[in-house]
Amino acid sequence: MDAISVIRTKRDRGALTPAQIDWVIDAYTRGEVAHEQMSSLAMAIFLNGMNRTEIARWTAAMIASGVRMDFSSLSRPTADKHSTGGVGDKITLPLAPLVAACGAAVPQLSGRGLGHTGGTLDKLEAIPGWRATLSNDEMLNVLRDVGSVICAAGDGLAPADKKLYALRDVTGTVESIPLIASSIMSKKIAEGTGSLVLDVKVGSGAFMKHLDDARELASTMVELGTDHGVKTVALLTDMATPLGLTAGNALEVRESVEVLAGGGPQDVVDLTLALAREMLDAAGLKDADPAKALADGSAMDHWRRMIAAQGGDPDATLPVAREHHVVTAASSGTLTTLDAYAVGLAAWRLGAGRARKEDPVQAGAGVEMHAKPGDTVTAGQPLLTLHTDTPEKFPYALEALDGGVLVGPEDAAFTATPVVRERIA
Amino acid sequence: MDAISVIRTKRDRGALTPAQIDWVIDAYTRGEVAHEQMSSLAMAIFLNGMNRTEIARWTAAMIASGVRMDFSSLSRPTADKHSTGGVGDKITLPLAPLVAACGAAVPQLSGRGLGHTGGTLDKLEAIPGWRATLSNDEMLNVLRDVGSVICAAGDGLAPADKKLYALRDVTGTVESIPLIASSIMSKKIAEGTGSLVLDVKVGSGAFMKHLDDARELASTMVELGTDHGVKTVALLTDMATPLGLTAGNALEVRESVEVLAGGGPQDVVDLTLALAREMLDAAGLKDADPAKALADGSAMDHWRRMIAAQGGDPDATLPVAREHHVVTAASSGTLTTLDAYAVGLAAWRLGAGRARKEDPVQAGAGVEMHAKPGDTVTAGQPLLTLHTDTPEKFPYALEALDGGVLVGPEDAAFTATPVVRERIA
Repeated sequence: MDAISVIRTKRDRGALTPAQIDWVIDAYTRGEVAHEQMSSLAMAIFLNGMNRTEIARWTAAMIASGVRMDFSSLSRPTADKHSTGGVGDKITLPLAPLVAACGAAVPQLSGRGLGHTGGTLDKLEAIPGWRATLSNDEMLNVLRDVGSVICAAGDGLAPADKKLYALRDVTGTVESIPLIASSIMSKKIAEGTGSLVLDVKVGSGAFMKHLDDARELASTMVELGTDHGVKTVALLTDMATPLGLTAGNALEVRESVEVLAGGGPQDVVDLTLALAREMLDAAGLKDADPAKALADGSAMDHWRRMIAAQGGDPDATLPVAREHHVVTAASSGTLTTLDAYAVGLAAWRLGAGRARKEDPVQAGAGVEMHAKPGDTVTAGQPLLTLHTDTPEKFPYALEALDGGVLVGPEDAAFTATPVVRERIA
Repeated sequence: MDAISVIRTKRDRGALTPAQIDWVIDAYTRGEVAHEQMSSLAMAIFLNGMNRTEIARWTAAMIASGVRMDFSSLSRPTADKHSTGGVGDKITLPLAPLVAACGAAVPQLSGRGLGHTGGTLDKLEAIPGWRATLSNDEMLNVLRDVGSVICAAGDGLAPADKKLYALRDVTGTVESIPLIASSIMSKKIAEGTGSLVLDVKVGSGAFMKHLDDARELASTMVELGTDHGVKTVALLTDMATPLGLTAGNALEVRESVEVLAGGGPQDVVDLTLALAREMLDAAGLKDADPAKALADGSAMDHWRRMIAAQGGDPDATLPVAREHHVVTAASSGTLTTLDAYAVGLAAWRLGAGRARKEDPVQAGAGVEMHAKPGDTVTAGQPLLTLHTDTPEKFPYALEALDGGVLVGPEDAAFTATPVVRERIA
């Protein structure tokens, strides 16, 4: 077995054999297959695809490259959620403690933002004292005591994926359905959850711009999870416009707490509850009532305990950016477009995201929205507030928003897209 | 400008801009673009192609990565030949001194074999004392004194190609017409020859198995040469069966000397004369008579001086392999197939070629052929003699030959393929 013959097979539109896949993933993890060989293979996969059998084996080989966690010692069923990433997608923050409050255990291994999409760990780190990195024992303790934990994945889970993900990031091979599906699912299956709900975003602010692609990614992942004994369901959800009224780390924590307190923007509440119901259902807790757990304060109680268990102060004042700039409506009418990619890019440029993995993020930076598509607005009314510690970035953020915020006549045809567009199980 | 945006352009089937090409070749040569980035770009080029404008710019950028030699101080016109590589292709050995004997200067920068195809430098190194590596001054002196020189290319010529060629070799991106054409032509144009004849091989023992591909490669290279002011002509020549009756380093030197002495196999003589006429014609020496230079000993005289000028002893006994094994005809009839790839692979396995660049080759190893397709053979008659210092390799060589040497009935339909199939100018 050698790298060139594996590359040639895929380059010439063949299907990789199980033995080729097992060998190349293992040899790459060990360093026997070089980065430049894996990147030409990744580009061949990007352009020529993989069939379902190949994707399943590729995923299994990445799981086998590391350890697989086991939560069977917990007294509660485990449920996890994964989002493919979007703008203003703070759902994990209210969702994890909410589902824990309803009786499931939620082992939420999360990531950081890259590019215009935010990362759950970056958001929570806006809370003074909160720590993303836990040992396996600490993680299990928080999970046992609180019922939910949100932390960084350890190095032992799917190391092949970790290496390949970093490689794809610099070699133009990110947006490939087989590679995305196997990357997400290898981590989630290795993590050891019993059930998994996938939030597959579709729209300008998501990796998948088209419903067909999102559907294919979702059904690929559902099949992979099911094949590995993880009860898996996917919701295709809208990412044409940002979720909620904030995009940025501390801004999104604030909005999440509003949801846990029984308020918050309707789309965030709706999606949180839809995902919570799917998770509880998948975990076998069909009688749980997440709306009640939001209303009666038990979700908030779990949130406070979860934050405190990881060193955070749930009562601390959140960081605020030093400067702000208000964008107003140029005319009166209906807000017809508030483009998720434009808002995400603006938030990123204001300092909420990072250009390279090693860059820091600004806790207070981001975009606050004062209207959503379909809302009637008046000329001069504030539409957005931009927050940053680096005001020299305002022009770049405004450039990102150019064409992404549109006000039409008051009687402009406008059809709201539901937050949840499809369900795939 | 960044590597990922260049990769994405080609990945998404776009044409690279001149600025993108200039930047990526320069940045790769300097090490700013990483190997893994260039290899994913190479695979994207392999699968999505490049148009003529892109190939021309890519070639120019590789030439610009290093020095360009200049032979304008010579009193004679320069002519060079390049073969895309085949089995038993020793043509450079008699050709260079022959063309020099007819009045042109032949600066033949050559390479080593890789895989089943032989390399000119490996062949000449079978001659005791002969040195492949010359300084630029030494090279110019041999060229001035003898009229022809065959040596290794210096590091300064097209360093971008040198780096990219080594990368393609390990990443499954060799057999791409745009990448092959730009690699060959960047070196040949940087070398500074005034005219160039390309011997583009087609058949089982060549990189191009099909006439259409060979034609496309040839016309791409002719256009590139012409655009850079090099008078360029291509012959498409047969590589379905080996050239001559030997494949292997010392064996091929012996056969080349037979040709220079006025004998040798007819196909080797025919191709040598056809290429010599093209080179002399391209160099403006239309009245030269290469057949006469072979017959009157002047080509042999130039050969002896050229070998001696690089430290070789033209009278030395050539190395002979320690062991041999004779393959005989199983039945009487007509030899219908003597497959170039099978013979090349057998010679390689016997030790004439190398698996990795740093491996040594055996000077005496190879395959001697006693019949050619179309010949009548008798059961029990020797067809091939295999030579090696490592007799444990005989079974692997015989395995390579399995199915590649076929004897049909005496009246088997057999149409000989002419050595020169097409001419492209």
